Amino acid sequence: MLISSNHIESHNEDLLKKHQNKLVFTASEINESEAIIKKLIDFQIAIPSWALGTGGTRFGRFAGGGEPRSLEEKIEDVGLLHKLNNASGAISLHIPWDIPQDYKAIRTLAAQHGLKFDAMNSNTFQDQANSEHTYKYGSLQNVNKAVRKQAIAHNIEVIKHGIELGSESLTVWLADGSNFPGQLNFRKAYQNTLESLEEIYDALPSNWKLFLEYKCAEPNFYSTTVADWGQSYSYVQKLGDKAKTLVDLGHHLPNANIEQIVSILLMDNKLGGFHFNDSKYGDDDLTAGALKPYQLFLIFNELVEGMDARGMNHAKDLGWMIDASHNIKDPLEDLLQSVEAIMIAYAQALSVDRKALEKAQEENDVVKAQEILQNAFRTDVRALVAEARLRSGAALNPVELYRSIQVRENLIGERGLKTMATGL
Amino acid sequence: MLISSNHIESHNEDLLKKHQNKLVFTASEINESEAIIKKLIDFQIAIPSWALGTGGTRFGRFAGGGEPRSLEEKIEDVGLLHKLNNASGAISLHIPWDIPQDYKAIRTLAAQHGLKFDAMNSNTFQDQANSEHTYKYGSLQNVNKAVRKQAIAHNIEVIKHGIELGSESLTVWLADGSNFPGQLNFRKAYQNTLESLEEIYDALPSNWKLFLEYKCAEPNFYSTTVADWGQSYSYVQKLGDKAKTLVDLGHHLPNANIEQIVSILLMDNKLGGFHFNDSKYGDDDLTAGALKPYQLFLIFNELVEGMDARGMNHAKDLGWMIDASHNIKDPLEDLLQSVEAIMIAYAQALSVDRKALEKAQEENDVVKAQEILQNAFRTDVRALVAEARLRSGAALNPVELYRSIQVRENLIGERGLKTMATGL
Amino acid sequence: MLISSNHIESHNEDLLKKHQNKLVFTASEINESEAIIKKLIDFQIAIPSWALGTGGTRFGRFAGGGEPRSLEEKIEDVGLLHKLNNASGAISLHIPWDIPQDYKAIRTLAAQHGLKFDAMNSNTFQDQANSEHTYKYGSLQNVNKAVRKQAIAHNIEVIKHGIELGSESLTVWLADGSNFPGQLNFRKAYQNTLESLEEIYDALPSNWKLFLEYKCAEPNFYSTTVADWGQSYSYVQKLGDKAKTLVDLGHHLPNANIEQIVSILLMDNKLGGFHFNDSKYGDDDLTAGALKPYQLFLIFNELVEGMDARGMNHAKDLGWMIDASHNIKDPLEDLLQSVEAIMIAYAQALSVDRKALEKAQEENDVVKAQEILQNAFRTDVRALVAEARLRSGAALNPVELYRSIQVRENLIGERGLKTMATGL
Amino acid sequence: MLISSNHIESHNEDLLKKHQNKLVFTASEINESEAIIKKLIDFQIAIPSWALGTGGTRFGRFAGGGEPRSLEEKIEDVGLLHKLNNASGAISLHIPWDIPQDYKAIRTLAAQHGLKFDAMNSNTFQDQANSEHTYKYGSLQNVNKAVRKQAIAHNIEVIKHGIELGSESLTVWLADGSNFPGQLNFRKAYQNTLESLEEIYDALPSNWKLFLEYKCAEPNFYSTTVADWGQSYSYVQKLGDKAKTLVDLGHHLPNANIEQIVSILLMDNKLGGFHFNDSKYGDDDLTAGALKPYQLFLIFNELVEGMDARGMNHAKDLGWMIDASHNIKDPLEDLLQSVEAIMIAYAQALSVDRKALEKAQEENDVVKAQEILQNAFRTDVRALVAEARLRSGAALNPVELYRSIQVRENLIGERGLKTMATGL
Repeated sequence: MLISSNHIESHNEDLLKKHQNKLVFTASEINESEAIIKKLIDFQIAIPSWALGTGGTRFGRFAGGGEPRSLEEKIEDVGLLHKLNNASGAISLHIPWDIPQDYKAIRTLAAQHGLKFDAMNSNTFQDQANSEHTYKYGSLQNVNKAVRKQAIAHNIEVIKHGIELGSESLTVWLADGSNFPGQLNFRKAYQNTLESLEEIYDALPSNWKLFLEYKCAEPNFYSTTVADWGQSYSYVQKLGDKAKTLVDLGHHLPNANIEQIVSILLMDNKLGGFHFNDSKYGDDDLTAGALKPYQLFLIFNELVEGMDARGMNHAKDLGWMIDASHNIKDPLEDLLQSVEAIMIAYAQALSVDRKALEKAQEENDVVKAQEILQNAFRTDVRALVAEARLRSGAALNPVELYRSIQVRENLIGERGLKTMATGL
Repeated sequence: MLISSNHIESHNEDLLKKHQNKLVFTASEINESEAIIKKLIDFQIAIPSWALGTGGTRFGRFAGGGEPRSLEEKIEDVGLLHKLNNASGAISLHIPWDIPQDYKAIRTLAAQHGLKFDAMNSNTFQDQANSEHTYKYGSLQNVNKAVRKQAIAHNIEVIKHGIELGSESLTVWLADGSNFPGQLNFRKAYQNTLESLEEIYDALPSNWKLFLEYKCAEPNFYSTTVADWGQSYSYVQKLGDKAKTLVDLGHHLPNANIEQIVSILLMDNKLGGFHFNDSKYGDDDLTAGALKPYQLFLIFNELVEGMDARGMNHAKDLGWMIDASHNIKDPLEDLLQSVEAIMIAYAQALSVDRKALEKAQEENDVVKAQEILQNAFRTDVRALVAEARLRSGAALNPVELYRSIQVRENLIGERGLKTMATGL
Repeated sequence: MLISSNHIESHNEDLLKKHQNKLVFTASEINESEAIIKKLIDFQIAIPSWALGTGGTRFGRFAGGGEPRSLEEKIEDVGLLHKLNNASGAISLHIPWDIPQDYKAIRTLAAQHGLKFDAMNSNTFQDQANSEHTYKYGSLQNVNKAVRKQAIAHNIEVIKHGIELGSESLTVWLADGSNFPGQLNFRKAYQNTLESLEEIYDALPSNWKLFLEYKCAEPNFYSTTVADWGQSYSYVQKLGDKAKTLVDLGHHLPNANIEQIVSILLMDNKLGGFHFNDSKYGDDDLTAGALKPYQLFLIFNELVEGMDARGMNHAKDLGWMIDASHNIKDPLEDLLQSVEAIMIAYAQALSVDRKALEKAQEENDVVKAQEILQNAFRTDVRALVAEARLRSGAALNPVELYRSIQVRENLIGERGLKTMATGL
Repeated sequence: MLISSNHIESHNEDLLKKHQNKLVFTASEINESEAIIKKLIDFQIAIPSWALGTGGTRFGRFAGGGEPRSLEEKIEDVGLLHKLNNASGAISLHIPWDIPQDYKAIRTLAAQHGLKFDAMNSNTFQDQANSEHTYKYGSLQNVNKAVRKQAIAHNIEVIKHGIELGSESLTVWLADGSNFPGQLNFRKAYQNTLESLEEIYDALPSNWKLFLEYKCAEPNFYSTTVADWGQSYSYVQKLGDKAKTLVDLGHHLPNANIEQIVSILLMDNKLGGFHFNDSKYGDDDLTAGALKPYQLFLIFNELVEGMDARGMNHAKDLGWMIDASHNIKDPLEDLLQSVEAIMIAYAQALSVDRKALEKAQEENDVVKAQEILQNAFRTDVRALVAEARLRSGAALNPVELYRSIQVRENLIGERGLKTMATGL
């Protein structure tokens, strides 16, 4: 299935007048809306290959239809998203689920869809059919050196795949941890993990980054060996400049102030990037912005402020990725909703009156500071996000167009009803 | 300090053109905006007398200036708020902090400010100077019948004050609970509490309601004797039709789905009313909507849906009250911000396309249902709330007017810098 | 694999002297230790059929060897446990995973192992290969009546299987809920669920109970339709006397005071039984007592006190079951550890000096009340639990015996290394 | 009030026989019980001066009688505790509540009671009557340099008092943070705090340590400027070798794995010491071990393992202090209970079979590792703790002796019923 430019033009034409009215009004409400639109056009959020199929929980999985059956079809799916919103111009692969057979062909296919290869993801939380050693008791932390070596070698292999594809970063998420007190010696688990990470780090090309994700729990339920930002920070400090902390919004203890964590990591030049999603209880992997849109805005508020303070390029200097699961939605519709929520939060953060905020902060005018942030959040910025799409040839309303041209039905026609993508 | 109609007219005149432009645009975005404005005009949120002074924590209190020194001055403060926003037309008193000396004079004063007397609040969590018995080990739950009798008598006295003032409800919040395992026999504590509540219930006039609040913790840190909605529900079921559960947004365990609780209590005709505030960690008593505005909207979404399903009057059939504390803000500014956030959430909930939502739910169209709610939340409804104020003679921007006519400075001039209101 | 009485006798002989010394000392520390031992002998904890295989998470599963491949082998496994500890004299089946082909043969086999059939469990959270309708959007709550009918019929079929096997209760755990705001109308979901439960309730034999479990989250991550004890309580009240609430220790929001919930449900005659496990973050399904043994003791403290206050039979009047998962342990060893932890907590609760505790409570002597509970908890009661096993022909140290006679190795020999039991 | 050696001898004589029986049995159960007793004798837990009076919450305070009215009486109170348990041989002062008038006299008095001066505590969370600047918007983080200077000067003054008394450490707990999004620029707050800490650090004598406490929330409810161990770690790394992280058990987000944090801080030589207490919901400041005794044991398990791995002296190389509040207990009884719980956890941790545990960990024998820890925890070690007291001239049962010789009644007689100690 390809979405043609005709589809998009015809869709946009129908909505154009209403959009333009709204844009004019929005521009009258927001200073520098033109500059914001330009930044929105540049901003791209990578799509993880494993989010293109219906997710599941340990209690079951209700597969949808037309799910991608191969890396090629996954690229095609991200291409569809990118065609619709021009904001999903990258795909993040997961090895071994997405091992390319022919690098050149894959690179060509991605280029045809306007896609780059974002961070490569290794998998040492599952045993593969042909594995010599099991990760039942952890991978990089394992008491058994042979297991650690296998996991290190896998990560290095992932880097190699990434080099061939033009990726420039490796995301390491470790399920390593323990389920019961006494199971691990925490110190030794840390030291084994550090030593393993050092070997992987040494295999990084000079232009690469290593993102070390943290997670408080699951699949281990007593301890995790990279459990919180402080632990990730302590590892990446020891590893070196190319190592950074990756923040997944769903990986925190209840009530954590994620925006403050983001600010401090940025300050210390140790923030690597994001996995966006939303959650209420744990790593629920819900659509970004579906439950706590104000928190998402506050995070972007810190990102914009902190990146600008360091003179960073919003679009390029951090890794932006979705990591969600959507068990009961059409995955592509869900990803469109996630991207939209992220773009809105980013646009809101860009529209904050920074000078006034700084003044309110300097004067301890708490009421005013709150007014400034709430004003940015309450103002409807959707026309700016839509305009960014319009200018870059994408659809004013991606979900609506997706439905009207029956993308899912077409995919089912092409691929069948009973396909099941690799993933969680 | 009185705010004159001239003040308001002059303020509104300056903002009128911009407001009207925005209103026109908003009306083009939202169906039935006129009906929504009318409902907003009718909606009133009671101000608790104890929120008019600067709050504190156990670690200290940083008093502001010009705080009300008497019940009369508290009524004057709420009068100022109501003049500014025409949405704070009631005051909720706390006994013994607000015992009226002359009922008639107080009623007259309140009427001059357009204020009603909302729910009366009893206090059995502190010992008064002249108390015979201590509440150190609880009040209505106490193992000592004499203590229970004292607490019951106090509640009945509060009802009597309320009758004189024209209030029609009693809010019972109990600090009762325990700090250590073994301290309480939970069953006996429950039974003592129920028996005590029955005596108080019997003293209610026929047109009154008893609101039973629940709270998971604080000031007791092991158990609370009315700890969650289920416990409050089990008490009010046993008490009778006049007894209802009161929901304070800050009284839940982490991650509780408050909007679902609201829906179920409404369904069973056991929801009495609300204490609005916001929080991140516990009963933080922050400004309503300051941290989780989407949750506040979702709660109002259930309220509007559930009240309409029962044919209830939004403005009259539930008790609406703020219960916040604001340690570091001007209390009046903070209350204006809370009221604004509540009105916005209510307006957003009124603007939800109910028919479309019902259809999406009937079809299990989860993506669509999310789009409908998010659309209502992302649309800027502030012009509707402002228009409701404009039409009822209040200010387009209450905080701005409050500052420009220097209300706080005037109050300090009248009352002094070192006043301290009763309260927490 | 059968464990012979010789195995046990020989094992016990080796440990006997040390045991007897310890027992004598323990009896000198605890009043009425003889009565406690008798109660321990009578106390049986049902084993769920799905806990006999290695569990997993959504991130993967590391299967062990020798897992039971059939209902017969599951009964055999529970028989092994019961032989070892004489405290696991019941099995709880899950339909459709454990549909008996020949009721009589299954009953005979169970009887040979000294096992009863505890509560039957239905499954409406997964689609079966031959299902007409999907539970993707819920079962008893579903907006589609045909789906509800299918789920109701399934539950009634489960009851029928149970009747044939001599079970006397049905446990209903519903995954029903929603992942996104707007997805469900909470009230209608409640009402559909209630209506469905009423049909199931009507199909219960007169001597049966219906246990309605609650759970705050997972597999749905925004709302659950029986989310907390209050919701379960509101359903079972409406259903009738045979309907009771079932408490799973891992199904609560963070920090919930489970022991108080237990006490109140018991008081209102609405407690049905327990699913024991332990957890730190969510429904972690860890070994009972592995993380919070004092909480487990406090729960039993309420159970003993509350059941005695109602004149209930500890062993028979509530349902006692383990519901754990143990992804990385030998399931049988794990179950032995869970049962041991539960028996210890029960023994500790039985040893509480109730008269002294009641006196301390009546006098608000908080320090003393704490001393009494802590004394019971700190005293080593393991000799009483071991003595109960000894007297009933089981092993003094079940895990040790299990290992020394190489049960797992034998099972692998019989069943193979690559078996995988049904379950989560 | 003085407790004479006669009191203690007579008390011990009554309990001696039972104690000795129990000790003999315990020694038969635990290897190296003699070595454990010696370590217990050496282990001292500092008592904070502010825990000697009845605490309170923001909702009120129910003062007890006979509370210490001066620094001298606080020392006397700790002397009473130390006489009873010989495990409370240090007092931790809080400035400005405990400013000594005559250093020499105070040192002499403390020495008479066998007490040392543990960490000094500064207070920049409350305004003092004579303060020039307010800490309403923070102290070391404040946007106003003059406020920061005042707070720095105060900390340096506290160091000076400490030098005179022979203390060797400063504990900095900051209430600094924010209540509302936008109030703070997190980065600047961090940088101001760091700069302020550097000035304080520079004023430390060479043999001193600076302990930097962290706390997730309260009294600020949106952000805290030293919010978690990771933030404290990032500050103390930058400050230098004398700066260490202090862990207060009640200062974590729900479900935090504190024992792992302890292990990692120890590994990196950044653990400074502890504030012991227990909690269920937040910083509840309950008696140590009152709710989660297994967690307390697991923390000591890491401490013993980690300190031994570094060759540290258990008694001297970390700071051990209670920080609890006990609103409804006699403070001295409560402190005796806290110390007892801590000593028990320490004794249990000392009794862990480390070689067997290490072997189980090396073999991934999770069941065995759990058995080893649970065995240490379930074994009753109280006789070892009592024996440590007996050998050092203290009471076998401190709470019992405290009550039988009517310490509180004597203190009320000496000091009066309506005294109120400084503190929270």
